[in-house]
Amino acid sequence: MSTESQQKPAQENQAPKRTQISEIGKMALLKRLFEGTQYNNSAFTKFEGRIPGKAGRTKDVNNFLTVQKTMLEGIDFDLTYTPLKHLGYKAALLALGSIYAKCFNPASLAFSLGLSARFCVEDIEELWMGVLAACKEHNIEKLTLDLGASMTGLNIAITACGVQSSKLMATFPAVDNTCLLCLTGNVGAAYMGLHVLEREKIAFNKIPAERVAEYVQPDLGKYKYILSQYLSPEINPKTTEQFKEARLFPAWGGFITNGLAAAVKELCQEHNVGAKIYLGKIPIASQTFAMAEELNMDAITAALNGGDDYKFLFAVPVQEHERFHKEFPNVDIIGHLCKPEAGAVLVTPEGAEITLRAQGY
Amino acid sequence: MSTESQQKPAQENQAPKRTQISEIGKMALLKRLFEGTQYNNSAFTKFEGRIPGKAGRTKDVNNFLTVQKTMLEGIDFDLTYTPLKHLGYKAALLALGSIYAKCFNPASLAFSLGLSARFCVEDIEELWMGVLAACKEHNIEKLTLDLGASMTGLNIAITACGVQSSKLMATFPAVDNTCLLCLTGNVGAAYMGLHVLEREKIAFNKIPAERVAEYVQPDLGKYKYILSQYLSPEINPKTTEQFKEARLFPAWGGFITNGLAAAVKELCQEHNVGAKIYLGKIPIASQTFAMAEELNMDAITAALNGGDDYKFLFAVPVQEHERFHKEFPNVDIIGHLCKPEAGAVLVTPEGAEITLRAQGY
Repeated sequence: MSTESQQKPAQENQAPKRTQISEIGKMALLKRLFEGTQYNNSAFTKFEGRIPGKAGRTKDVNNFLTVQKTMLEGIDFDLTYTPLKHLGYKAALLALGSIYAKCFNPASLAFSLGLSARFCVEDIEELWMGVLAACKEHNIEKLTLDLGASMTGLNIAITACGVQSSKLMATFPAVDNTCLLCLTGNVGAAYMGLHVLEREKIAFNKIPAERVAEYVQPDLGKYKYILSQYLSPEINPKTTEQFKEARLFPAWGGFITNGLAAAVKELCQEHNVGAKIYLGKIPIASQTFAMAEELNMDAITAALNGGDDYKFLFAVPVQEHERFHKEFPNVDIIGHLCKPEAGAVLVTPEGAEITLRAQGY
Repeated sequence: MSTESQQKPAQENQAPKRTQISEIGKMALLKRLFEGTQYNNSAFTKFEGRIPGKAGRTKDVNNFLTVQKTMLEGIDFDLTYTPLKHLGYKAALLALGSIYAKCFNPASLAFSLGLSARFCVEDIEELWMGVLAACKEHNIEKLTLDLGASMTGLNIAITACGVQSSKLMATFPAVDNTCLLCLTGNVGAAYMGLHVLEREKIAFNKIPAERVAEYVQPDLGKYKYILSQYLSPEINPKTTEQFKEARLFPAWGGFITNGLAAAVKELCQEHNVGAKIYLGKIPIASQTFAMAEELNMDAITAALNGGDDYKFLFAVPVQEHERFHKEFPNVDIIGHLCKPEAGAVLVTPEGAEITLRAQGY
């Protein structure tokens, strides 16, 4: 028997390799993370005011949009049940979503990670795989990463930049108090997925230490949809292009990460309008209702105030109603803007109006 | 005696007011912070591809530069001895410095704060005063703020955007291995200031609880210079303009926040060059030497590897030597670039060459 094959079973039983970052150094780790990618980790993200047009076409002057997001361990995510690769992907989407919401094309992402001592090289590689997957999917031109220390846990800051032709932007309609409110998918499912994960975590933590080895991960298959909504949300990378192709732009767009109600209230505050959304029109998945029942929770609250939906809310001029419906068949009209005096309200099927509540407002 | 004057002594003895953020809500706090400022906290930072030229002059196409920085409590600052107002000011400068280093004009700042429960409304107002002071001094057009929760301490993420005319940028010289290395001020002083503060913190923590009331803050007057270098560094807001007026641009610029050695190594790595810096040419303040002696530390190490200098390192084409010296009399030439094989070295007065070391490399 060769030495190689003798060693094999031992290797299989070994715990995954954990290389301390100090063993290889920050610069070597950064080099490793960017190796084989199309990106070079230049500390700066520079954009030219012109983007190359099609052959022979005049170049266009651009508008730029910058958005900054942060994700903190223990507040915005829990690594007990969030795989690092999924987290990296979600962090990228968190920033990109706000770029798409305003109909800009994402161009760059800058990541800063604050790491406590428990994170090793392999952890960062995992997270980075998720980031790179999102960059590939969303055609990101420039990507940078800065690594630093953190006292506790993992700390992620993300800046995304997007570009849009100035000429095109001038054609965007204005927000007025007759606009329709449109939603690009069902809400509340991610929040229910999070609750499944939280429940499993609590159950696991109750197992006495001496019996942990016997623990068999429960079959979470029946929660697949809501779990995927929480752990691996998606954004259609053609979002901006779809609007451009239809020559039909929303008057306002928001990326829903903190609950539908917060997005509606943000729009109302930003443009001094009121809003009515109709309870019966809000798309909620059957799995969300089922899980809410299982947990004895309210699905409507999950839909209005649960986080991590990663869907878009658009305000669309009422006169574009039919065209919009035809061009974007998967978008649900859930309500409309109104005069500011009416406030932001939820209208029940019985016609009662309930003031929308959202965290921070 | 009027009721007013009767109440006065009582008021003087009151502890400063501490309003919980939950008492007024996040949105009300944000509103309060932006009230009376020229800024509206629009979630997005949009730049137009054109900036208004002087009356009648053609508008110019711009390049954009985005830089993201983070500052974490316990890692990058200690609130025991860092006033929040100073911290806000420094955080703004940390991001702005990188914009100036590349000869861009700063245009916007986006702040995200992660706050643990111990921070109150008044704390954030203090910090924000420092941010607003920096914005005024540096003529920032757009300023945004996002507030979130943090598990431990204060967490600051800052994104700065800068603009520069594309036409002008095309005139920037290229980095080559004959460039001179120039420094805009002395280094190591901030690091020594930090050590004074750390020493006082340790001394204070040793006082038994029952004797804290007797504590008299020591006279730190003799450390004024090094303390100010740490607590209230400054950047000349005309930095970019000076270069423009002289029509003399550096081939490379870096903002020194993590030690001179790290900045030199960054330049070497980015452009595949070597560098020689001359020990005898590095400007070090007499107060830095004095404090280093008092603490039995090495002033050279503080100058090379101490953080928070907030000075600029520029690489300037050797043929511009005389013009540069004339136009920027306060800048010190500390060395030059060379072929990559030579590495990044410190040359002692005796002519010995010591490889530069920096954190992370």
